Amino acid sequence: MSSPAEYAPTARTVPTRSRERAAYDAETVHAILDDGYLCHLGFVADGLPVVLPTLYARVGGTLYLHGSTGSRPLRTASDGGLPVCVTATRVDGLVLARSGMHHSINYRSVVAHGTAHRVHDPEERRLALDALVDAVVPGRSADCRPADAKESAQTAVLRLDLAEVSAKVRTGGVNDEPEDADLPHWAGVVPVTTSVGEPVPDPGLAPGTPLPDYLRRFVGA
Amino acid sequence: MSSPAEYAPTARTVPTRSRERAAYDAETVHAILDDGYLCHLGFVADGLPVVLPTLYARVGGTLYLHGSTGSRPLRTASDGGLPVCVTATRVDGLVLARSGMHHSINYRSVVAHGTAHRVHDPEERRLALDALVDAVVPGRSADCRPADAKESAQTAVLRLDLAEVSAKVRTGGVNDEPEDADLPHWAGVVPVTTSVGEPVPDPGLAPGTPLPDYLRRFVGA
Repeated sequence: MSSPAEYAPTARTVPTRSRERAAYDAETVHAILDDGYLCHLGFVADGLPVVLPTLYARVGGTLYLHGSTGSRPLRTASDGGLPVCVTATRVDGLVLARSGMHHSINYRSVVAHGTAHRVHDPEERRLALDALVDAVVPGRSADCRPADAKESAQTAVLRLDLAEVSAKVRTGGVNDEPEDADLPHWAGVVPVTTSVGEPVPDPGLAPGTPLPDYLRRFVGA
Repeated sequence: MSSPAEYAPTARTVPTRSRERAAYDAETVHAILDDGYLCHLGFVADGLPVVLPTLYARVGGTLYLHGSTGSRPLRTASDGGLPVCVTATRVDGLVLARSGMHHSINYRSVVAHGTAHRVHDPEERRLALDALVDAVVPGRSADCRPADAKESAQTAVLRLDLAEVSAKVRTGGVNDEPEDADLPHWAGVVPVTTSVGEPVPDPGLAPGTPLPDYLRRFVGA
């Protein structure tokens, strides 16, 4: 699905506090989504909430979500759709204020509401599975054996078209009360980064097998 | 709340696949929870799922969750409790198999189901707010101004006693099909780590103010 330049705010996507941190433009929303591959997928089962860590990939204005055909949400989603809330969050820093109250986290998050559907079309499934692999390591899908028919049947892919979606971003430094300025506490921001390390080859790989170019770029080697 | 050595599995906490990855012992569950401070809090609003990134801290067999008194889930939780699903996930590695199908993630996650309640007792609230600060940076709560009465009233704390809870852990290398062993694709694991960087002092801090000991230890400086 193509996407608008700006997603329309709704009652659910306007936060009840810190509204200045909310953003609805596609550029911000997509950049946060594209910076990761793991979301938390929420759905309702027997009237109660369930939240599962789930791999995702964005293609245009669509999120693809990965699962097993045996899993409960994906079985449900094949029967007319599953209402979901998909949330992806990155932490960028720890904000240590002079007061406990103003401690905070620098973060970027996206929350998407909607109804997810199983993907049955073989060509769309193939594209989605490739996108899910490439969301983890760009370029990887071209360097592995594609799923055969049996494997593909064991893998469920959910599709969520982005429509009711928002980003929330906190950046910057400490926001202390003016009267706390002279308190004797260290204050500032501790940066948080997630990084990838030196790839560990499978023992079955021939010794001396070089890292493929896309993987060397990915790990910055 | 004190905790058992082992949490009892339930229909909801036994996964439908990869059951060998599930764990219910308190040591495993608590270690995963204690390795982080950000969870994804799921609840049901108007019959639909909502998932919000939320700060948490574990104290014994209890999770404390942080929120604003204006936020919808916390308002609901003051009226007899809010059914929630709390999920915390750490990613440790990217598993690149020779087949697309066997690509995976090394991760540790905890999923807790239950009914969360607002904490009203002032002493428990104080301990919970300290625990929430210390979950982010151990030792920090002793080095900031505690919340005054007005600030405390603006902060909602939810309590979830751990009972229906499980861990799921994937470790190790590539599990390829034997017949894929000789495919010409690089295979192995890319480690993923989250780390903290050099603290950036608030501009209002006197130049040359040293890092407190607990913070120097935290950032490994």
